[in-house]
Amino acid sequence: MYVPEPISKLIDGFMRLPGIGPKTAQRLAFFVLGMEEDDVLDLAKALVRAKRDLSTCSVCANITDQDPCHICVDKRRDRSIICVVQDPRDLMAMERTREYNGLYHVLHGAISPMEGVGPDDLKIPDLLRRLGDETVKELILATNPNIEGEATAMYLSKLVKPFGIQVTRIAHGMPVGGDIEFIDEVTLTKALEGRRELS
Amino acid sequence: MYVPEPISKLIDGFMRLPGIGPKTAQRLAFFVLGMEEDDVLDLAKALVRAKRDLSTCSVCANITDQDPCHICVDKRRDRSIICVVQDPRDLMAMERTREYNGLYHVLHGAISPMEGVGPDDLKIPDLLRRLGDETVKELILATNPNIEGEATAMYLSKLVKPFGIQVTRIAHGMPVGGDIEFIDEVTLTKALEGRRELS
Repeated sequence: MYVPEPISKLIDGFMRLPGIGPKTAQRLAFFVLGMEEDDVLDLAKALVRAKRDLSTCSVCANITDQDPCHICVDKRRDRSIICVVQDPRDLMAMERTREYNGLYHVLHGAISPMEGVGPDDLKIPDLLRRLGDETVKELILATNPNIEGEATAMYLSKLVKPFGIQVTRIAHGMPVGGDIEFIDEVTLTKALEGRRELS
Repeated sequence: MYVPEPISKLIDGFMRLPGIGPKTAQRLAFFVLGMEEDDVLDLAKALVRAKRDLSTCSVCANITDQDPCHICVDKRRDRSIICVVQDPRDLMAMERTREYNGLYHVLHGAISPMEGVGPDDLKIPDLLRRLGDETVKELILATNPNIEGEATAMYLSKLVKPFGIQVTRIAHGMPVGGDIEFIDEVTLTKALEGRRELS
């Protein structure tokens, strides 16, 4: 079957992205043909720039276009508290809450013996260096509430103990808008354990 | 909330594509950051080339990188039969069957009074010109089996009558692998009407 090369190349390109199969790739490619040329050029440029101009912050390992990153140099941020996340996307999710005003540390993964990821494959040595240098009072462990994330949180809490810093873990419980009927038992148990008195 | 501009631009770019919301756009953008630079450049180039190098065939209105298109100039193709489709993607689907060896005509849509699409907004005048010039014996109407596609097929069949050409419509019926229990009544009725004797 003959498909013009420019379109087959574009379909192949889209198929390299996660969650995009042959049908979606084809739909996207034909959509691009109908887009304004300027919009297509913008997208192409954005792809190249994102890859070329972004790096990881030498302090917190967040993805950034300046080093140290915008958050690390922000004087209005509370420098006594560091929130540890697995991924830059988790950091973005925390920022979206607008409730957190401390610093971050991005591990770029979680400890996973199954996938051969050990502490040294993550940004843990950098974190320990920061704890030695800075005047950190609290470390919030905001790794994911799954096996790898919990293991990483446990590992970090033991590792950080000698520094005499308060180590906290984000709460487990019912998601807002969730349905008790359909929630899994482990979450419901955690929600019970973490119950608070109503004032 | 601060997001480095190269990444927010890329997220915005992905969000312009169909079926891609903020969360998917973010996931794709972060995936791009982890891709090899060459692969990102390839995708960026493919976007620009697809937009710049592709046009519609002056004969059949298929999307092509040469004019007339690869199918229209193919000497091995049966020039006595034209299959009318709504969209270049429908043409690709027909080609994937490897069962059809005639020519095509792409309408780029279907008649839809609701959306203000009339016969003159489609490539119907071009089709009539072809029927006058060429030695066409059969016209297969492969528009979609929905209201717009059926209306377009009816309209074309009446329009083409004076040319004395055989006009056929692709069969309606049960999709292969379908389940009679769950098929809609209209399709089942069509499947009954179109029943054939087993030999």
